[in-house]
Amino acid sequence: MKATVMYAAGDVQIQDVPDAAITEPTDAVVRVTRACICGSDLWPYASMERSESGQSMGHEAIGVVEDVGSDVATIKRGDVVVMPFAFSDGTCAFCHEGLPTACVHVGFFGNNGTNGAQAEALRVPFADGTLYPLPVGEDDALMPSLLTLSDVMGTGHHAAVVAKVGSGMRAAVVGDGAVGLCGVIAAKRLGAEQIIVMGRHADRTALAREFGATDVVAERGEEAVERVRELTGGEGVHSVLECVGLDASMETAASIARPGGAVGRVGVPQHTEIPGSLPAFFGNITIGGGPAPVRAYFDELLPDVMEGRIDPGRVFDSTIGLDGVPDGYRAMTEREAIKVMVRP
Amino acid sequence: MKATVMYAAGDVQIQDVPDAAITEPTDAVVRVTRACICGSDLWPYASMERSESGQSMGHEAIGVVEDVGSDVATIKRGDVVVMPFAFSDGTCAFCHEGLPTACVHVGFFGNNGTNGAQAEALRVPFADGTLYPLPVGEDDALMPSLLTLSDVMGTGHHAAVVAKVGSGMRAAVVGDGAVGLCGVIAAKRLGAEQIIVMGRHADRTALAREFGATDVVAERGEEAVERVRELTGGEGVHSVLECVGLDASMETAASIARPGGAVGRVGVPQHTEIPGSLPAFFGNITIGGGPAPVRAYFDELLPDVMEGRIDPGRVFDSTIGLDGVPDGYRAMTEREAIKVMVRP
Repeated sequence: MKATVMYAAGDVQIQDVPDAAITEPTDAVVRVTRACICGSDLWPYASMERSESGQSMGHEAIGVVEDVGSDVATIKRGDVVVMPFAFSDGTCAFCHEGLPTACVHVGFFGNNGTNGAQAEALRVPFADGTLYPLPVGEDDALMPSLLTLSDVMGTGHHAAVVAKVGSGMRAAVVGDGAVGLCGVIAAKRLGAEQIIVMGRHADRTALAREFGATDVVAERGEEAVERVRELTGGEGVHSVLECVGLDASMETAASIARPGGAVGRVGVPQHTEIPGSLPAFFGNITIGGGPAPVRAYFDELLPDVMEGRIDPGRVFDSTIGLDGVPDGYRAMTEREAIKVMVRP
Repeated sequence: MKATVMYAAGDVQIQDVPDAAITEPTDAVVRVTRACICGSDLWPYASMERSESGQSMGHEAIGVVEDVGSDVATIKRGDVVVMPFAFSDGTCAFCHEGLPTACVHVGFFGNNGTNGAQAEALRVPFADGTLYPLPVGEDDALMPSLLTLSDVMGTGHHAAVVAKVGSGMRAAVVGDGAVGLCGVIAAKRLGAEQIIVMGRHADRTALAREFGATDVVAERGEEAVERVRELTGGEGVHSVLECVGLDASMETAASIARPGGAVGRVGVPQHTEIPGSLPAFFGNITIGGGPAPVRAYFDELLPDVMEGRIDPGRVFDSTIGLDGVPDGYRAMTEREAIKVMVRP
């Protein structure tokens, strides 16, 4: 079967790899009907050192279950399923606490003996704990939005939850990528009254406004902080959704939060220390977040997608086949596309 | 009147200064009956550059109200009052939200035209919002514990609240100073089942055990992290009370938290970036805290002091007069005393 392998920064190839197959009794094999390229895939695309064996890519997918291991109880052949970006056993204390990304058996697709999801098929460990059956056929019109539950919508929602967005509050979303845009949807969904999106790509911030953003701040650094202060009566926002992960974005996030406010960070940190220690401390601002427990959010978010109350699938502005994946990486890196959907 | 002035690192003097007097109609003048030296006073004592005018010191006090301005409504002459380490108007949005340390009129004693509390008397701005009348006489036996409400007990409590200590949980307290010891009291009071105190001063950790600590970890760095893991079934603790503020202590705090856990930091940060970004992110650990809103905690903590359920006054192991204050700084710096009480 075909799968996407990255060999070095800028070098993504479609390769023939061994067919996905059951190796553990708790596995399922899923034929991928929709996958996508993630903003986090762009970090290695920018910096990966050359590797002979390469890195199998992709961690977001919807597909059809083709086979299940002997211990799989709830997932069945033929199920249309959405897959969170991490697999988890569904039974450990962390899974029960709603944090499957800290599962004692957590693993990430493309590693741990699995191939990535930018492929014709993949093996899914702990199928019962990981996969989530969808009440739709494999070509349902809602596929783009359902696919975002795999990562970006759940991740934007996580940022909003950790940032404690609530009714009537002021929120800011740092970053106008797919996660930031889903963060706008999440902030609106949780009742924010003012939603400031911070980004400088006109097409993206325009979409953010359609999703519910009330203000756009294109400035950066100290100017951005001043602008947010102006927009919030000098106070800053109750909730900051940090959807980038760079030093500058985190410093901004800590500096625009209102005293007593919260920052939910979901951009994979490109730093070993969190900037903004002093403004965060003196403002009693809480900084939380991490790999989103998207599996735990399916129950809450799926009805809103199914009933059309949210439409996060609009973040996809390009659809390609598997052979188009290398160019999809290029297009997202060059900001030609917000997010690329893959139909293998 | 006499007051404490610091002129440089290591140079603390008792000086004659103008008598405290009403300057604003919302002021009160308080005759100090108990004050103390704070761990945070030791930062400038270690590093302050020489200043001709000096810095008036002290921010914790109990005293008797000697005079009130014409707009003071609830505080009366003769009241025995406890004073939080920051003054606040009691009327702004942040005060109403329980965060008086973010009051729009917040100020710190020894600055903002006030002298510090290591003095015979001091002017207290916004007396109604700041001072809290105590139901005791000025020489009540509970004075030491009541005095801790001014800062260290409220600060330890804040660390525990931000760290989300709850019934049956595992907590760790980083630091065995007066705030850390009060953090142990707070963690026990909020129901923690296991309380690990991290410190290496035998007298202090012994007191921590009396306050409810179940384990003592004297190791530092990676060894300390390993030791906490061993004590917690490999998982780490739900709640970390960071009561130091150094890079190493914050890194340890982020590294011993259980996935999904929380760090409450109340040690004044001696860094502009928060170490431990990656363990915090990948564990979905929340880092919060800041200057404790101790004024907002009086209602909750006072009954426990009055009824003897907590006895934080035991952190005072030395009592001196105002003339003894310079030596008190030395004694705390050299770890001869945990915390020094001042009776002007």
